[in-house]
Amino acid sequence: MSQDTICAIATAIGGAIGIIRVSGPEAIGITNRLFTPAMGSPLTERPAYTLTFGQILSPEGEVVDEVLISLFRAPHSYTGEDSVEISCHGSPYILQQVMQLLIGQGCCAAGPGEYTQRAFLNGKMDLSQAEAVADLIASTSAATHRMAMNQMRGGFSRELALLRNQLLHLTSLMELELDFSDHEDLEFADRSKLQDIAARVEQVIARLADTFSVGNALKNGVPVAIVGETNVGKSTLLNALLNEERAIVSDIHGTTRDVIEDTLNIDGITFRFIDTAGIRQTTNTIESLGIERSFHKLEQANIVLWVIDATCAREQYRQLHTDILPRCENKHLVLVLNKTDLLPDADAFMSTFEDLPDTAIVMPLSAKRKDGLTTLQELLVNFASLPDPSQANVVVSNVRHYDALTRALTAIRRVRNGLVSGLSGDFVSQDLRECLHHLGEILGDTIETNEVLRNIFKHFCVGK
Amino acid sequence: MSQDTICAIATAIGGAIGIIRVSGPEAIGITNRLFTPAMGSPLTERPAYTLTFGQILSPEGEVVDEVLISLFRAPHSYTGEDSVEISCHGSPYILQQVMQLLIGQGCCAAGPGEYTQRAFLNGKMDLSQAEAVADLIASTSAATHRMAMNQMRGGFSRELALLRNQLLHLTSLMELELDFSDHEDLEFADRSKLQDIAARVEQVIARLADTFSVGNALKNGVPVAIVGETNVGKSTLLNALLNEERAIVSDIHGTTRDVIEDTLNIDGITFRFIDTAGIRQTTNTIESLGIERSFHKLEQANIVLWVIDATCAREQYRQLHTDILPRCENKHLVLVLNKTDLLPDADAFMSTFEDLPDTAIVMPLSAKRKDGLTTLQELLVNFASLPDPSQANVVVSNVRHYDALTRALTAIRRVRNGLVSGLSGDFVSQDLRECLHHLGEILGDTIETNEVLRNIFKHFCVGK
Repeated sequence: MSQDTICAIATAIGGAIGIIRVSGPEAIGITNRLFTPAMGSPLTERPAYTLTFGQILSPEGEVVDEVLISLFRAPHSYTGEDSVEISCHGSPYILQQVMQLLIGQGCCAAGPGEYTQRAFLNGKMDLSQAEAVADLIASTSAATHRMAMNQMRGGFSRELALLRNQLLHLTSLMELELDFSDHEDLEFADRSKLQDIAARVEQVIARLADTFSVGNALKNGVPVAIVGETNVGKSTLLNALLNEERAIVSDIHGTTRDVIEDTLNIDGITFRFIDTAGIRQTTNTIESLGIERSFHKLEQANIVLWVIDATCAREQYRQLHTDILPRCENKHLVLVLNKTDLLPDADAFMSTFEDLPDTAIVMPLSAKRKDGLTTLQELLVNFASLPDPSQANVVVSNVRHYDALTRALTAIRRVRNGLVSGLSGDFVSQDLRECLHHLGEILGDTIETNEVLRNIFKHFCVGK
Repeated sequence: MSQDTICAIATAIGGAIGIIRVSGPEAIGITNRLFTPAMGSPLTERPAYTLTFGQILSPEGEVVDEVLISLFRAPHSYTGEDSVEISCHGSPYILQQVMQLLIGQGCCAAGPGEYTQRAFLNGKMDLSQAEAVADLIASTSAATHRMAMNQMRGGFSRELALLRNQLLHLTSLMELELDFSDHEDLEFADRSKLQDIAARVEQVIARLADTFSVGNALKNGVPVAIVGETNVGKSTLLNALLNEERAIVSDIHGTTRDVIEDTLNIDGITFRFIDTAGIRQTTNTIESLGIERSFHKLEQANIVLWVIDATCAREQYRQLHTDILPRCENKHLVLVLNKTDLLPDADAFMSTFEDLPDTAIVMPLSAKRKDGLTTLQELLVNFASLPDPSQANVVVSNVRHYDALTRALTAIRRVRNGLVSGLSGDFVSQDLRECLHHLGEILGDTIETNEVLRNIFKHFCVGK
């Protein structure tokens, strides 16, 4: 399909070893022109899956590096094409020199995710598996690793294949009905049987779509909003939480996350903290815009930490019914009573919060002195209570897949309604095809444009 | 020699591919216990220099990653031991999991440079070649790359071997003289012939030691001191220079440089800028301590940029004879007339500097407006004028080697003096042995203690 031979540095800069990947019809030939083996036959004559030690030489005959070459021959390679991996000393200078030599010999520099895109285009994996490669590389916990590994190994694809078979079966039954619809005396496929199949398909799609809330929280973190008036210590609280554990979560280059927010890993669960502007009644236009945004962000959160300054708790608590509760439906609400170090007796305050809903929890602490932080962290873990996906269970964590599932769900529901209401088979078949189309999008079967593929792979890092 | 099997992540965190290196008597056996090949025979039965695709499984049977295994068998590996390289997806989580599994099976986590240290101990390379591996990985320019590549490929070692042969020849001639010293009637080796050999050896050692000034400047950068009173714009000048090009020079983890100073690469030459405290007459004790340090740093520099504020140039210029010139002997001195943007006519000032030595250069510029920076950069390159070492020429860039050469030089000079002054053969032989010893230190032949090796390899990164 693709005639170019591509090359890219596939390792991060700074290690002992640096790998350059070359893939395409000329991969072996081009590398062979730059490479002199320490002994034995030239690269072009070596069998697949072998390692060859030797030198990369510049056209002037200068030794650029002593390298190890891994050789792969189509179709038995990651991309499905002839491929070579050049293991160099990890010097940025050397890696750049080797890249320049390869490009000088006719290679193109690979774009982001181009190796995995070729693997997809050459039928080595479907699109959801290809997308899992990026998730796998970005995985930072047992849970995200399991989700990505299951998806990469085709767990999701198999579920989708089962669904598709059922839908195709439905379609063929519908078409049978259509073919014979002129013969009113013939018995047609029993529509209640069709409804059963459609109901089962709907159930599976709905179940898959439902896993997204867990999958997304595992992948991108459980969203926790920190709200409260200005100067109650929201930033101090956030920093106190982050300083403890920040090093555990690092920003990995090439993840699919566009915006990096402050994240924190507690007991293997990632929390994504949404620090908001202070909320309070204001007449300042710009400030109230900020407050509007705060409330909007609050809507995305599963957990809301409402921070109150213990030294003026009664006053700030008045916002409960006006601003806080109406926006915390179906969310875990924690009233963080901060600055307890400034109070002689924090417990005496508890009666203030008597009209707080039973589901909400009051948590006295001092962010400054780091008192009570551990209890808050335990509470967050309790609230998150994400199931750790087993390697056997499909958990959807990709927004694109979720969107497609949602569309497929809408379509299959129209199918069911159509079957119930006795809609013409033509229309029902059209909805069935739409449902199939959206499931196919996940696997990449029904994706026609390069535009879509570019959008998917642009989040990959180069060399992947 | 070493019975441990070691493992380490050999690539930097954050790329598409991550490599884990395993080396030692159990390398293949341990990896085999964690690895299930996708097809064919187990790892232990595979031939050397082959690649095997398969899965790393946890003891619970969970797939940790799909990996490619490179297999090496002693003595045909980097370390000279049985070795395995595991090519994983570049997820930090996966790499840590695989490391934990290996350690759980009995591997030890490798120390810095332990692979290269084993290569040295197993006779795969001498110590100067081993040290070149770190330099090669840290190389950032054609010149540093060539120096390190030549050294790693044994260019320096061959020169030392030649020297050693001559010294051994000298020693045997001296011993001949000693053996027959009782027979006064016998003719001894002509001492003038011995002197010729010693002179030739001295010449070569001196030449090698002399290359260190170039080698060190290439490797660590040409030292440029920026001096001048406070508020003349020294930092602005430095930042203006660095902002232009900073991205070119990055701090590579695992270089042998202990202190990272501001470095700048211009036309392939690295300059190391030494920003100094302002120098001026002061009665403040703490301030004068800082100024003392400035003057001390100035001594290390090859090039001195003396920055003067153009708006009070005449006053500041008075330091020329008292503070500047006495400290700039054998250095390139540039008088940087800064803030020319604040002057109506900078040229009119030039007469002020008439008593400046001919070798010094006045350079009017505006660091703030970035006027004249290019001319200053060209001047720096001119002053540096480092020869680019060809791959055939040995350039010494390692302080340890330079120290050993200096000692060897002192010893061979004592040999020559001894031969000239008719010193007893016993004493001359002792000096000859000392010279041999110091040359042997460079190659690692005469290094007995682990302490010395630890000091050499501690600057390597783990996985190297």
